[in-house]
Amino acid sequence: MLQPIKHVLNRKRIILASGSPRRRELVENIGLKVELCPSLFEENLDPKTFNCFSAFVEETALQKVLEVENRLKSLGTPPDVVIGADTMVTLDGAMFGKPTSKKEAFVMLKSLSGRSHTVYTGVVVKSLDKVVKFTEKTDVVFGKLDDEQIQGYIDTGEPMDKAGGYGIQGVGGTFVERVEGDYFTVVGLPLYRLCSVLYELFKENK
Amino acid sequence: MLQPIKHVLNRKRIILASGSPRRRELVENIGLKVELCPSLFEENLDPKTFNCFSAFVEETALQKVLEVENRLKSLGTPPDVVIGADTMVTLDGAMFGKPTSKKEAFVMLKSLSGRSHTVYTGVVVKSLDKVVKFTEKTDVVFGKLDDEQIQGYIDTGEPMDKAGGYGIQGVGGTFVERVEGDYFTVVGLPLYRLCSVLYELFKENK
Repeated sequence: MLQPIKHVLNRKRIILASGSPRRRELVENIGLKVELCPSLFEENLDPKTFNCFSAFVEETALQKVLEVENRLKSLGTPPDVVIGADTMVTLDGAMFGKPTSKKEAFVMLKSLSGRSHTVYTGVVVKSLDKVVKFTEKTDVVFGKLDDEQIQGYIDTGEPMDKAGGYGIQGVGGTFVERVEGDYFTVVGLPLYRLCSVLYELFKENK
Repeated sequence: MLQPIKHVLNRKRIILASGSPRRRELVENIGLKVELCPSLFEENLDPKTFNCFSAFVEETALQKVLEVENRLKSLGTPPDVVIGADTMVTLDGAMFGKPTSKKEAFVMLKSLSGRSHTVYTGVVVKSLDKVVKFTEKTDVVFGKLDDEQIQGYIDTGEPMDKAGGYGIQGVGGTFVERVEGDYFTVVGLPLYRLCSVLYELFKENK
């Protein structure tokens, strides 16, 4: 979608404020040239102080972006555009972060088995004069898993650094019967909406 | 999902009867060990002789599997399991194959723009004593694209070897507002259903 403004984007210094290898891969796959700069923001916002999941993920994404932008500015290398994102898995109104133990991963995956949950990814795109924020949500339906399948998956090590305890782009993809929404929201970066925002921001310069 | 029968599968000679780099990548991502053997089947079945899309893709997948199995048998190296698949993009009852020219790619993508179409992937899993066939279908909603975006995408070269003229796992993913169904059906191999079939076939041996 971005081809008509590729020459404009290529002249910009675009930073992806993320250390996630999944996000990096998505951005590379669509041919967007970005520099990676993982945010040092602590991700310590209290979900209880937000009135909806989207407000929480957008604020976390914004804090990641601001930390990276300020750091680069103070180093004398200000960026043109900073992109940040935050992804959250939710079930019955509860947030699932990254599991802190194999036991917790088991409980998470068992509760996701055989039903639908919702993944939110909040995105912030900050250019020199504009901040655009949005959230995409995608429903994910897991097939019914037996305990051995869950335990076998945990033993691969894949669940431990992932919100909700699974990676849809890896072995975890075999659990997913269907998705409803942008698949890439579940991977961690909703590509359609992100590219639409970038296109709107820069199409006048083409 | 396959971890509990991994040791069983690892003792089998499993062939993926496909030359598609997308299918190979999917299978590698879920840690399934397969040999690749692209089928020499000509894919010349007449869609008019089938009464539905799923019958057509399943029969094409079956012919790919049989050709590969027979060839390997005649070479004295018979496989234990052969997996074949065929993917088709449809819109308003019409089949979209791989575009044969840039002009055809443009017409295809223009007709997909701003609306929903349906992708079918038929899969055949043939073991020594059983043949399992199934089809998964997934709806894909494209955002509204302008002519420049379509032309820019064609100029990347990505559309030309892909059914429907786009690759969802590449730059084409930026066009896709949402999917409803198994995302991997659109990439070319429905992972959930394929792994469910393999699990059912081999769980008795674990």
